[in-house]
Amino acid sequence: MSVPKIVVLGAGYGGLMTVKGLQKKLHYNEAEVILVNLNPYHYITTKLHEPAAGTSHPDHARIMINSVINQQKVKFIQDKVTAIKLEDKTVQLENNKPISYDYLVIGLGSAPETFGIKGLLENAYFIRNINSVRIIREHLEYMFARYQSEQKDELITIVVGGAGFTGIEFIGELVDRMPELCHEYDVPLEKVRIVNVEAAPTVLPGFDKDLVDYAVKYLEGKGVEFILSTPIEECKEDGVILKGGKEIKAATVVWTGGVRGNKLVEESGIETMRGRVKVDEYLRAPGYENVFVLGDSSLVFNEEERPYPPTAQMSTQQGQLLGENLASKIRGGEMKPFKYMPKGTVASLGRREAIGTVGDKKLVGGKAAFMKKLIDMRWLYLLGGISLVLKKGKL
Amino acid sequence: MSVPKIVVLGAGYGGLMTVKGLQKKLHYNEAEVILVNLNPYHYITTKLHEPAAGTSHPDHARIMINSVINQQKVKFIQDKVTAIKLEDKTVQLENNKPISYDYLVIGLGSAPETFGIKGLLENAYFIRNINSVRIIREHLEYMFARYQSEQKDELITIVVGGAGFTGIEFIGELVDRMPELCHEYDVPLEKVRIVNVEAAPTVLPGFDKDLVDYAVKYLEGKGVEFILSTPIEECKEDGVILKGGKEIKAATVVWTGGVRGNKLVEESGIETMRGRVKVDEYLRAPGYENVFVLGDSSLVFNEEERPYPPTAQMSTQQGQLLGENLASKIRGGEMKPFKYMPKGTVASLGRREAIGTVGDKKLVGGKAAFMKKLIDMRWLYLLGGISLVLKKGKL
Repeated sequence: MSVPKIVVLGAGYGGLMTVKGLQKKLHYNEAEVILVNLNPYHYITTKLHEPAAGTSHPDHARIMINSVINQQKVKFIQDKVTAIKLEDKTVQLENNKPISYDYLVIGLGSAPETFGIKGLLENAYFIRNINSVRIIREHLEYMFARYQSEQKDELITIVVGGAGFTGIEFIGELVDRMPELCHEYDVPLEKVRIVNVEAAPTVLPGFDKDLVDYAVKYLEGKGVEFILSTPIEECKEDGVILKGGKEIKAATVVWTGGVRGNKLVEESGIETMRGRVKVDEYLRAPGYENVFVLGDSSLVFNEEERPYPPTAQMSTQQGQLLGENLASKIRGGEMKPFKYMPKGTVASLGRREAIGTVGDKKLVGGKAAFMKKLIDMRWLYLLGGISLVLKKGKL
Repeated sequence: MSVPKIVVLGAGYGGLMTVKGLQKKLHYNEAEVILVNLNPYHYITTKLHEPAAGTSHPDHARIMINSVINQQKVKFIQDKVTAIKLEDKTVQLENNKPISYDYLVIGLGSAPETFGIKGLLENAYFIRNINSVRIIREHLEYMFARYQSEQKDELITIVVGGAGFTGIEFIGELVDRMPELCHEYDVPLEKVRIVNVEAAPTVLPGFDKDLVDYAVKYLEGKGVEFILSTPIEECKEDGVILKGGKEIKAATVVWTGGVRGNKLVEESGIETMRGRVKVDEYLRAPGYENVFVLGDSSLVFNEEERPYPPTAQMSTQQGQLLGENLASKIRGGEMKPFKYMPKGTVASLGRREAIGTVGDKKLVGGKAAFMKKLIDMRWLYLLGGISLVLKKGKL
C-alpha cells in the first residue's frame, strides 16, 4: 500500500501550480502529496505593491490555500521549514515532526538581496509578503499622521531603492495614494517627496526604451524624482546616504533592489548562485534525481546563457510543467524538458496607467492597465477557476 | 468711529460660545470681535477618544470655524498665540502682527499634567487634539501590523495611564475596536492586553459607586486589566515602570492622567494654580477688569470650596454667560455672576455602552449611550443649529 510521497515546500506560484497539476492528474491512491507553507494563505506577489502603498486591502492579495486545493488529494501542513536534509530525504519543520519524501519540490521563494549595503536590513522596509506590506502601509500612515505636529519634511519623504519592476509599480501606487493620504492627514501634497534611487543607469532595465521613457515621464509628471546611476551606500534610521556622500532624509525607505534565493536552499548543500539553484532541463537540482527547484529559488538561463529574471510567469510555467512531469514519472512515464515561453510583461503605474509588451506589441496607458488586470485574473483562474475570478478579480 | 475691541483666544467650547453670543447680541458696528485659533477648525474634545482608538474618523470630531461664525461680525485669525502682554493690552502671534484689545477672553485650553513622571512627555501619547489622536490611531495600527512579523507581545499591549473620564472613555472605544483591528492584522484577540493604571484607589473618581462598578465589570468582561492605587513611576520607550518596581512592556502608552492650564497664561503674569486661573464671579482674572478666563484655563470652585473638574459642560456655560455679559457691558449694562449648573454627566464605554447621571437619575447601558449622543448633538446644535446636527450628528 506504499505510494510515492511528494513533498512540496512553499505555496507560491510554482508550488501551487505543481500541486494543482498533481491533484488533477493523479488519483488519490497514486501518491501522497504534502504541501507545506508558512501561512495558511498564498499571496499574490505581483500585487503586493498595492497594499504596500495602501491602494488596496491586503486581503485582495491573498487566497486561503485550503480554498484552492483538493484536500482529499493534498495534505496541507501550515508550518515553517527549518531545514532540508537531502541525505536523509527529510524536511524539518518548526512545530511538526520531520517529514520524509520520495520527491521533493522546493519553491521557497526569495529573500531581499542587499548587496552588502550597510544598515539596509535593519532600517529599510521590504515588499516581501502580506505582513511586510502591511507594515509599510501603517508605517507610512503613522509618519504622515505625525507631520502636522512635528512639521519635519523627512516624515513625508519616501525613498524607494531600486527601479526594477517592484520599485516602479510601488511608486505608481504611491502616486495614486498621495492625494488621499495628504487629505487625510492635512499634509500639503506639494511637500511630499518620492525619490527613486537606482544604481543602474536606467529604470526597468531590459524593458523597451520607449516604454521606459513613457513610464519615467508619467511618474515625473506626478512629482517623482529619479536618481539613476547612483548606488545607495548606507541606509540609516532617518534616511539614506548615496554614493558620493549626498544624504536624503527620509522616514520611509523601501528597498526593492533585488532578490536572492531562500537561505534554506543554500544550507541544504545544493550548489547555488546567490542562493538560487541552476536547475537542469527537468528543473532538478544538480546531482539530485528527486529534488526539484522552481520559482525564485531556481535559475533558468536563456539561449544566450543569461538568467531570466525571477517572475511569477516563470514560476507558474515551471509549476505547470512540474505537476505534469511528476504525475507522469510516478506512472513510469517520461518527463518533458522545461522551456520558458515569455508571453509578455506589463508593469503597472497605478490604477489606470501601465506599460507593457504582449508578443511584439507595445502597450501604454489604459490599454496596458487593462492587460495587467487580465493577467491578474488569469492567475486567479488558474488557481480557483471562474468562481475565484468573480470573488477576487477586479477591473 | 472707534468701537471696543474684543479679542477671544481659542476656539474651544468657551471661546466659541463667547463669540456666538457676541455675534448674536451685538450689531456689527458695536464692537470689533476677533477670534484667534491655532487651527482652522474647532475640535470636539469630548469625542477625541473615538478617533484616537480608530472607531470614528477625526473629521467627525472637528468643525471648520468659518462655517459656524458670522464672518461679518467676527474676524477669525488662524495663528498661534505666542505671548499675552497684559501691560500693553496686546497679544503676540507667530505669523501676524500683535493685536491690541480692550477686552481679552482667554480660552486656550489645557496641557497634559505629568506630575513629574519621568519620560512621560517623551514617550507617552496624549489625547489632546486632532493631530495627537491621529498619531495614536496610526501608531496603534503600525504596532499591530508588526505583530505577525515580530511576535512580540508588547506590540499589542496598550497601557492607559489614568482612569478619569478620558481614560475610561478611550478604553471603551479600544474594546470596541479590538476585534476589527485583530482581524485586520491577524492578531489573536486573546493576546491583546489593555491595562489601565491609576494612582487613585478607584476609576472615575467622583462618579456614583454603582455606576463605577458597572463600568469596571463591563470593561473587565472585555478583558481590560485595572491596576489601581498604583502610580506610574516612569514611562519608557517600551513601557512603564509602576511604583514598587513592576514593569509592563507596552509599545503604546496613552496618558490621560490629568491636565493643567496652558503655560501662556502663567507666563502672562496672571496668578495661577497649576497653570489655571481662579477667576472671580464674572470670570475675570484676579486684578484685571478686562481680562476674562474660561474653560480649562480657569478654575471655578463649588460651595465647599473644591474646584469643579474642567469639562466641556463647564466651558460651554462659561462662554454662554460671557458672551451675554460682554455684550451687556459694552452697552453700559450690568454683568451677571457665573453659577455653574451641572446638568448631569455621561461617560461612554464604546458605541453601545455608557454610564451616567442626569439630575438624580442613574443611567447605564443603551439608555446612557443614547443620552451621550444627545449631549453630543446638543453641542452641535449650539454651534451650528439644526443643519450642523444633521450634517455631523449620529445616533
